[in-house]
Amino acid sequence: MRYRAVVAYDGTAYQGWQAQRAGPTIQRTIEAALATVLREPIRVAAAGRTDAGVHARGQVIAFDATALLEPVGDPGDPRAISALARTLRAANAVLPEDIALSSLEAATPRFDPRRDAIQRAYRYRIWNTEVRSPFERRTAWHVRDTLDSEAMAEAARVLFGEHDFASFQGADHVHRGSVRIVSHSAIARAGDVVTYTIAANSFARHMVRNIVGLLVEIGRGRMPVATVAELLAARERRLAPAPAPPQGLCLEWVRYP
Amino acid sequence: MRYRAVVAYDGTAYQGWQAQRAGPTIQRTIEAALATVLREPIRVAAAGRTDAGVHARGQVIAFDATALLEPVGDPGDPRAISALARTLRAANAVLPEDIALSSLEAATPRFDPRRDAIQRAYRYRIWNTEVRSPFERRTAWHVRDTLDSEAMAEAARVLFGEHDFASFQGADHVHRGSVRIVSHSAIARAGDVVTYTIAANSFARHMVRNIVGLLVEIGRGRMPVATVAELLAARERRLAPAPAPPQGLCLEWVRYP
Repeated sequence: MRYRAVVAYDGTAYQGWQAQRAGPTIQRTIEAALATVLREPIRVAAAGRTDAGVHARGQVIAFDATALLEPVGDPGDPRAISALARTLRAANAVLPEDIALSSLEAATPRFDPRRDAIQRAYRYRIWNTEVRSPFERRTAWHVRDTLDSEAMAEAARVLFGEHDFASFQGADHVHRGSVRIVSHSAIARAGDVVTYTIAANSFARHMVRNIVGLLVEIGRGRMPVATVAELLAARERRLAPAPAPPQGLCLEWVRYP
Repeated sequence: MRYRAVVAYDGTAYQGWQAQRAGPTIQRTIEAALATVLREPIRVAAAGRTDAGVHARGQVIAFDATALLEPVGDPGDPRAISALARTLRAANAVLPEDIALSSLEAATPRFDPRRDAIQRAYRYRIWNTEVRSPFERRTAWHVRDTLDSEAMAEAARVLFGEHDFASFQGADHVHRGSVRIVSHSAIARAGDVVTYTIAANSFARHMVRNIVGLLVEIGRGRMPVATVAELLAARERRLAPAPAPPQGLCLEWVRYP
């Protein structure tokens, strides 16, 4: 049987979803926990391969297993625990504190969390005040210069719609092309926190961090809003500013047909 | 000269503001950072002696120092940095990531952050859903049972006003008496997070955690709302439920005349 789960993680301590190098990855940690609970080797696939230090609230994973844990109690008993619920609890009891499965359900035999996804959303958090925050150090980029969030919001709106994001993708991955359809792209300020949210059919590697790097330069007044359209037209990564650091980024949700 | 600062900290790694035992305390860490920056021994007093694992966004501290760092630039220059601003930056550069000074100003020679305070506010955060959260493990109490936040809100309102909190104070500290004036006591739910906020003229040791321990029992339906009034009348700590764990608690602000 194939199963699908939603996963949340604080990526601070990990080398990302997967990594070439040795060291803890989210993927290996979840595989080891599920193997312990289900007593068979488990291989997990994910909707998005998040980078080192990047977080997720709604990562979607899939895996095959011969059997889940046995249900407890009669199906009619309100205190009965289903096989899915029992396996979910057991996995969360084995997983470290910085990773948790929020749901577990049966999936179709060929469910592929990455290829079947039709929309994904990321959120990027900026802690924007002179003094750093002890509570935001793992989950936000600390930018001291006061950002013009109006200008950033205007720039964010330019990204809405279908564009070639060649100027905003990592140099190393080009095989899927760089045209994406952005269905949501917005900046919001709440006190000292500036948040960028973006939803699209899919994302090129480092795309959100490259976009945020540009939006922050615009918020600082170092580049005009018009740079967004110019960079989209240029299709040349080298022209864009440095990417934003990973810790502000979070994969919020993934949608399927 | 005497100075006053507002401090924020993630208390996870510390044995509290101060501790008898060896080990890192917030007080010792701030004193060491200020001594490094100001090149003289510094002794710091705080408004509230938070317990191990408890956080602060608006702790207020005071200390004496012979001199701050020298200001940079002419006072008329918009890029000039005052002695206060420069010392604040230097202290934050030396302090570990989980402690930050948010402001620094001159104080009157006899300013005592604890005795001069006329009001303090604490916030307690509960993560209230079946699955634990990787992002709330340091800053919230995970309660799996669905809490009746309406009943908790009703119980919270009973605490408003002047009461003898003898049933809600730690067994070890009685010397200040146990009558307190509560000016705010409210429960709010936002999604999976239940927050309790309380403001009072002062707090007995463990008072907020003892109150939250009771509110959660009421939210679970194990005790009726009437228990609050009964416990206030009883003035007997042994009758109250176990205190809530420290990590959900945060000292939000302290007010002075």
